Amino acid sequence: MIKIGIIGYGYWGPNLVRNFFGQKNCIIKTVADARPHRLQTLKNAYPSISGELDAEDIINDPEIEAVVIATPVFTHFELAKKALLNGKHVLLEKPMASSVKECEILIDLAQQKNLLLMVDHTFLYTGAVEKIKEIIDSDTLGNIKYLDSTRINLGLFQPDINVLWDLAPHDLSILRFLHDEKPYSVNATGISHTNNNIENIAFMTINYPSGFIAHLNCSWSSPVKVRMMMIGGDKKMIVYNDVEPTEKIKIYDTAYSIKSDDEKKSILVDYRVGDIYVPKINNKEALGAVADDFINGILENKTPRSSFSIGLDIVKLLEASELSIKNKGEEIILN
Amino acid sequence: MIKIGIIGYGYWGPNLVRNFFGQKNCIIKTVADARPHRLQTLKNAYPSISGELDAEDIINDPEIEAVVIATPVFTHFELAKKALLNGKHVLLEKPMASSVKECEILIDLAQQKNLLLMVDHTFLYTGAVEKIKEIIDSDTLGNIKYLDSTRINLGLFQPDINVLWDLAPHDLSILRFLHDEKPYSVNATGISHTNNNIENIAFMTINYPSGFIAHLNCSWSSPVKVRMMMIGGDKKMIVYNDVEPTEKIKIYDTAYSIKSDDEKKSILVDYRVGDIYVPKINNKEALGAVADDFINGILENKTPRSSFSIGLDIVKLLEASELSIKNKGEEIILN
Amino acid sequence: MIKIGIIGYGYWGPNLVRNFFGQKNCIIKTVADARPHRLQTLKNAYPSISGELDAEDIINDPEIEAVVIATPVFTHFELAKKALLNGKHVLLEKPMASSVKECEILIDLAQQKNLLLMVDHTFLYTGAVEKIKEIIDSDTLGNIKYLDSTRINLGLFQPDINVLWDLAPHDLSILRFLHDEKPYSVNATGISHTNNNIENIAFMTINYPSGFIAHLNCSWSSPVKVRMMMIGGDKKMIVYNDVEPTEKIKIYDTAYSIKSDDEKKSILVDYRVGDIYVPKINNKEALGAVADDFINGILENKTPRSSFSIGLDIVKLLEASELSIKNKGEEIILN
Amino acid sequence: MIKIGIIGYGYWGPNLVRNFFGQKNCIIKTVADARPHRLQTLKNAYPSISGELDAEDIINDPEIEAVVIATPVFTHFELAKKALLNGKHVLLEKPMASSVKECEILIDLAQQKNLLLMVDHTFLYTGAVEKIKEIIDSDTLGNIKYLDSTRINLGLFQPDINVLWDLAPHDLSILRFLHDEKPYSVNATGISHTNNNIENIAFMTINYPSGFIAHLNCSWSSPVKVRMMMIGGDKKMIVYNDVEPTEKIKIYDTAYSIKSDDEKKSILVDYRVGDIYVPKINNKEALGAVADDFINGILENKTPRSSFSIGLDIVKLLEASELSIKNKGEEIILN
Repeated sequence: MIKIGIIGYGYWGPNLVRNFFGQKNCIIKTVADARPHRLQTLKNAYPSISGELDAEDIINDPEIEAVVIATPVFTHFELAKKALLNGKHVLLEKPMASSVKECEILIDLAQQKNLLLMVDHTFLYTGAVEKIKEIIDSDTLGNIKYLDSTRINLGLFQPDINVLWDLAPHDLSILRFLHDEKPYSVNATGISHTNNNIENIAFMTINYPSGFIAHLNCSWSSPVKVRMMMIGGDKKMIVYNDVEPTEKIKIYDTAYSIKSDDEKKSILVDYRVGDIYVPKINNKEALGAVADDFINGILENKTPRSSFSIGLDIVKLLEASELSIKNKGEEIILN
Repeated sequence: MIKIGIIGYGYWGPNLVRNFFGQKNCIIKTVADARPHRLQTLKNAYPSISGELDAEDIINDPEIEAVVIATPVFTHFELAKKALLNGKHVLLEKPMASSVKECEILIDLAQQKNLLLMVDHTFLYTGAVEKIKEIIDSDTLGNIKYLDSTRINLGLFQPDINVLWDLAPHDLSILRFLHDEKPYSVNATGISHTNNNIENIAFMTINYPSGFIAHLNCSWSSPVKVRMMMIGGDKKMIVYNDVEPTEKIKIYDTAYSIKSDDEKKSILVDYRVGDIYVPKINNKEALGAVADDFINGILENKTPRSSFSIGLDIVKLLEASELSIKNKGEEIILN
Repeated sequence: MIKIGIIGYGYWGPNLVRNFFGQKNCIIKTVADARPHRLQTLKNAYPSISGELDAEDIINDPEIEAVVIATPVFTHFELAKKALLNGKHVLLEKPMASSVKECEILIDLAQQKNLLLMVDHTFLYTGAVEKIKEIIDSDTLGNIKYLDSTRINLGLFQPDINVLWDLAPHDLSILRFLHDEKPYSVNATGISHTNNNIENIAFMTINYPSGFIAHLNCSWSSPVKVRMMMIGGDKKMIVYNDVEPTEKIKIYDTAYSIKSDDEKKSILVDYRVGDIYVPKINNKEALGAVADDFINGILENKTPRSSFSIGLDIVKLLEASELSIKNKGEEIILN
Repeated sequence: MIKIGIIGYGYWGPNLVRNFFGQKNCIIKTVADARPHRLQTLKNAYPSISGELDAEDIINDPEIEAVVIATPVFTHFELAKKALLNGKHVLLEKPMASSVKECEILIDLAQQKNLLLMVDHTFLYTGAVEKIKEIIDSDTLGNIKYLDSTRINLGLFQPDINVLWDLAPHDLSILRFLHDEKPYSVNATGISHTNNNIENIAFMTINYPSGFIAHLNCSWSSPVKVRMMMIGGDKKMIVYNDVEPTEKIKIYDTAYSIKSDDEKKSILVDYRVGDIYVPKINNKEALGAVADDFINGILENKTPRSSFSIGLDIVKLLEASELSIKNKGEEIILN
């Protein structure tokens, strides 16, 4: 039985507590939150868990082997660093930290101390994403040519991070999980409708050496909630609509294939439109699988699906996107 | 009765012929197309119209007062120039021409010779766009903050123009019609999945001095047809879904308003989510109104809705977008 | 080349003319309609076809071998009888005639004179219904347990026939085509919201010896257009949504199977919910295939898909439904 | 503080416990369920509530003033009778009891002993139904002409009651709440696909003196979940789609009005199709309002919205529908 502590009992914290509470190889010893009313809410729901105002009470507790950090991004680095230095395994909410630099320091530290460092990219554990991964791995789509994602709604304007840092980690983690090619560069544009210069609408293009392209459209300012991702292969294409309750994934037997006609110096494109197939999706709660992967990763000393390297790659893309926006859309080469 | 000639009887030509045939102040004397089988099709449907293989037979016909040009974009300039030089009014298919330079020459010529030069941006005459215009003009939306449009399907790969030149004129004309602010700059990215370097997927951001932003997502490579435009104001927002048969426009009584809290150095955002209203849309055929606007523009010597200045502005944006793509997404300042 | 005449150029007539015009083994010699302005419309579109005010000019024309009758139902019997007596093949619009008696007389006559008598149940020739038929015939659904159809919209109140006679022939012909079991009885209820006692909303249940059941919901008084049919088998089920442009048919790998548990005197039901499959549908115009089937039926002396026996069976059901409504929903046994 | 007991901790019981737990004027003293594992589940979630195997422990507890009964329908009468005889207020799950006779005995008893007897028709407390009631009461729809409801899914086959007794109480309670006219008669048809003669698919027509008509389509055997109700007035019409997350109610400015043309002995129907309006719906949990209405009804001695007379009327309709099915669809006159 691994004893864990959870730092942060705000929006996501209760979900983490509920899922780790149900995880059979761990016990939540302590939850920390600086707001007394949040601890009261915790106490009502989970009388067996100790609530503390100070995160240090978790970080310094020798009984606690692993720490889950669900606080604002800008606090991730300091909390995770201390926890690692104290010999604790760490699960960080997404995005991993505020900069590539911070991520790299944390990774170094985890590796030196042989501790598990994981990032909670929950979407990688959903039935829908697992099904898409399975479809792609079976070569059903053929060569993948593009991924285009729209993630917009009337969202809470974050005071410290822009809409890409807030929403794009979902898309970027899915992209990274499904298409394991190292991206070459990033372009991004956006607008802030407040006077704090934090973009509430932003667009991001990720360029790849192979000709694959990814595009993200993120907004806190849409009247409707859209969670739509298209993935086009040269054999078939997928539309993944996450707001659909029962038909999240549709596989279109639709494609175009290019034949150069060298004589005529022209392009011939063959189009095909066929059947559609809607696979049944496992409806399990993804966060339960995240908890399992973290605890089993510790117990079995194995790399979890949502590894620190995925976490790092995503922060690289976010950092590049921010730089591109500040440079008026200029291409930022990734290294 | 104005006698007109129509050059080009391919995909769009028959629609033009049908609508000008029904226009009560004009007569179609001649249709020209270099392909004999197209002229045969014309003859079967309209025995009264003369079919000619050579466009010159229209351009040089002294009886013909006005010419409609529905040929590939790269031919627009030469045909329109000759027609104007021969004293004929001209309606050009969208986009107006291949470059800003070409457009400007045609405009100068039309003005010198006091001829009507118009571009067929059909969408400006649809019941849906007219209704949105009416809504915006009545200040129902408040200050407009963004326009975001997705226009994707499994489309014919054009051999000479990229997907923005092909599809974006629709969105850009609507944008120009609805929001009459001079844009400041353009960023665009895209990818060609053929070896002719003509983008089949592309994205475009248009930046405005006021903080308004427009974004376009265009693709010939989508398994599904999406024609979705969102327009967000600070009072209400519109979703315009052109593939919906009966509920094309939804007005959301949804908005966010920003209040700076100077003391706390923070941003307060007020959110509101309310009713939705789906106005009835006039289902008339838009191209009929284009024909009316062209013929009446000639008869009454007045500027049509889809004027050459709209046509020019759109080519400016397209040219800038192409330059931006070639310069890896770099911001192109418009002048 | 079979010369044909078409009687009635109202709502459906132009569609018949257009499709028979394109049929390669027949020529439309004459179209009759008592309204001069309809003949003028015909003349404008088809100068080669002779227009007559009097249907007798078709029925008595010795050159005409086959007659298509697209007039109000109450006129079908007299027109068809005369045409058959004059030795002409007959295609009748649905429903075949106003009563079973009339249908039987026409059938007898056609058989005596060895003439083709066919009813235009167009839906049997749609890509969607053909696909469903193919699916059922391949035993994909297993034993079919029910068909439930809703066909409602804001429809024209007919002055002479109720909503079941107007709309249900579509559903009944599909039902008859897909499930070839002789029904046992009919119940129907409905309401007239006018003072002519002609129901504008009506419901119909058709009972079968095997335990299969069919139910129809027809209305001219719905704010939305619904054309939805469900067909449930014990292996899979189909939802056929005819207002969907691209995904008309969905096959659900969903079923329940019953196991009696004799010991516990209880019922065990196994449920299964699986994938969904959306086959591509042929988008051809169904009425073209009706025209082919009629003309080829004459030329090759074979029974068309939409035979008089289907036409008769449907009138039997309609007649029974009307009797049931008049008898306050009482079960009417078919014989 | 009213002390209450809840009998039955199966499917619905936990929802009742959760909502009464949050009700501020009552305390749940005891929950009874004959299955020990259900009591264990209760204990884990609510350590403060006493769990008993025998319902008598609630019914005979002098401290308990009110009893909530969430057991199978056939047990409602005996449990409620005992509770009333012991002087306790009673909230019964829907449907109220197995027969009109049983309902009437319970009502008599409650009235004699001046106790509150209420039925949990939860739907009457949803934001959607409240909004529709408000719309109808403001005469927005004009005279209501019909209500047509479809409530189908792949549902659990009940061993003791047919699909109408299981699902129709929802529709019937809404119908009764929205349209307070005494129905005249009932027709129903249906089929059992098991050998226990309990219908899993059934249809019901309810006839009213005014010409209003209601129709219900209920099924446990549909591959898709449909919860769709249409209500047509002579001014406007409503479509209430309960599976829609955000746009549950649409008000169509669509109608037909009838004018008799006495001279021509014909019917003139005026059609109108206009805008659509989607009001925002309150998303509160309806069952919380049920709990409030029950407890406040006791405290303030007032009739709750979901009164016993609504409960009784619904059982009258269900009983009539069952009789009609057994009599092959025959009209059953209500008295």
